[in-house]
Amino acid sequence: MSKDLATLREALRHFAAERDWDQFHSPRNLAAALSVEAAELLEQFQWLSEEQSRALDPARLEAVRQELADVLLYLVRLADKLDVDLVAAAKAKLELNALKYPVDKARGSSRKYTDL
Amino acid sequence: MSKDLATLREALRHFAAERDWDQFHSPRNLAAALSVEAAELLEQFQWLSEEQSRALDPARLEAVRQELADVLLYLVRLADKLDVDLVAAAKAKLELNALKYPVDKARGSSRKYTDL
Amino acid sequence: MSKDLATLREALRHFAAERDWDQFHSPRNLAAALSVEAAELLEQFQWLSEEQSRALDPARLEAVRQELADVLLYLVRLADKLDVDLVAAAKAKLELNALKYPVDKARGSSRKYTDL
Amino acid sequence: MSKDLATLREALRHFAAERDWDQFHSPRNLAAALSVEAAELLEQFQWLSEEQSRALDPARLEAVRQELADVLLYLVRLADKLDVDLVAAAKAKLELNALKYPVDKARGSSRKYTDL
Repeated sequence: MSKDLATLREALRHFAAERDWDQFHSPRNLAAALSVEAAELLEQFQWLSEEQSRALDPARLEAVRQELADVLLYLVRLADKLDVDLVAAAKAKLELNALKYPVDKARGSSRKYTDL
Repeated sequence: MSKDLATLREALRHFAAERDWDQFHSPRNLAAALSVEAAELLEQFQWLSEEQSRALDPARLEAVRQELADVLLYLVRLADKLDVDLVAAAKAKLELNALKYPVDKARGSSRKYTDL
Repeated sequence: MSKDLATLREALRHFAAERDWDQFHSPRNLAAALSVEAAELLEQFQWLSEEQSRALDPARLEAVRQELADVLLYLVRLADKLDVDLVAAAKAKLELNALKYPVDKARGSSRKYTDL
Repeated sequence: MSKDLATLREALRHFAAERDWDQFHSPRNLAAALSVEAAELLEQFQWLSEEQSRALDPARLEAVRQELADVLLYLVRLADKLDVDLVAAAKAKLELNALKYPVDKARGSSRKYTDL
């Protein structure tokens, strides 16, 4: 497993144990919390044009940075509870995506693989 | 930056470049896509009890593993577009959370820090 | 169209016009905002057990009531922008769902129709 | 309560009872399902520009119509389980929003009320 993600995983285990929060951290609760954090990230962009989203002002960027962090923290925590190696899973999924979106068919298209 | 996440970042840059997808990958579009993937992850759990979510059958676990991967992939891609170091951001956020949720007040409670 | 939803639709048109907000209310922005509101609703439940969610205390119920309202408001606004009759669409979808989930196969099961 | 929404509510009660689905329909599960449906709606727009989202082709519009319907169906079902009058709640929330976003301060701005 990634050394940095393993460090985060250990820090999160310690954080939860100190607060007696394992009782709340069932996979389904963590999946809900992760989804809520992803929406808080989206909220930062909801009224921005694509151009504006490419040039965030410093205050907005800091808010976004914190929401990105929250998503990663819950992701690492949920993967820990399910004993999933996130980086290995991501590499495997990227290979799958390469098959679903062959370069010659997907080039320049935003269509879903089922519509290519 | 984490070596493994940097490897994923490079792989995603290559994946998008080959398919001419940078035109679609504005931060706001990526934030929407990330949120959609987080919901697909939640969908796997939506009718499960907390107990059931702790003991997924192999088929469900594999589906969950792929959704976790999708979330990580979009997270790395979005952070790349915004030039955010995810692991550094997560470490900083965890320190902030430790201040928001002091052990003596947060112990055994699922209340939001604003209600502690 | 439903008379009550039409009243809400007109009130929302007036609300946006007074504030010069039509410029922000593209369908895609409204879909993002709706998704964010649905996550704020979910946030109210994220650490609750199913039992607790069936017996909300008055403060939580009022917070939930406001989030339900926000979801309905954005839903009516988005449907207005797309000229969709929500109630007619819901009735048609319910008939479709009845075909996807035949009583004899779906009875007592939370499986997705693709797995029945 | 709105007559049309009451009709949907009754149809959904019947739909769930026939399939013995009340056991799954705790408020927290329904809130998760609603959030998942809102994300499926957002998915239809995730790679579209604002302009494209204002001029959907017929196939996309039909898909969007079905997702709007799903959101309304879960919203009505969840409100029923919590005994909330959706239209009354929406009217009350709109009045609250008028106070949070006074016309003179909010005009032409997409800022959150806390930043006005």
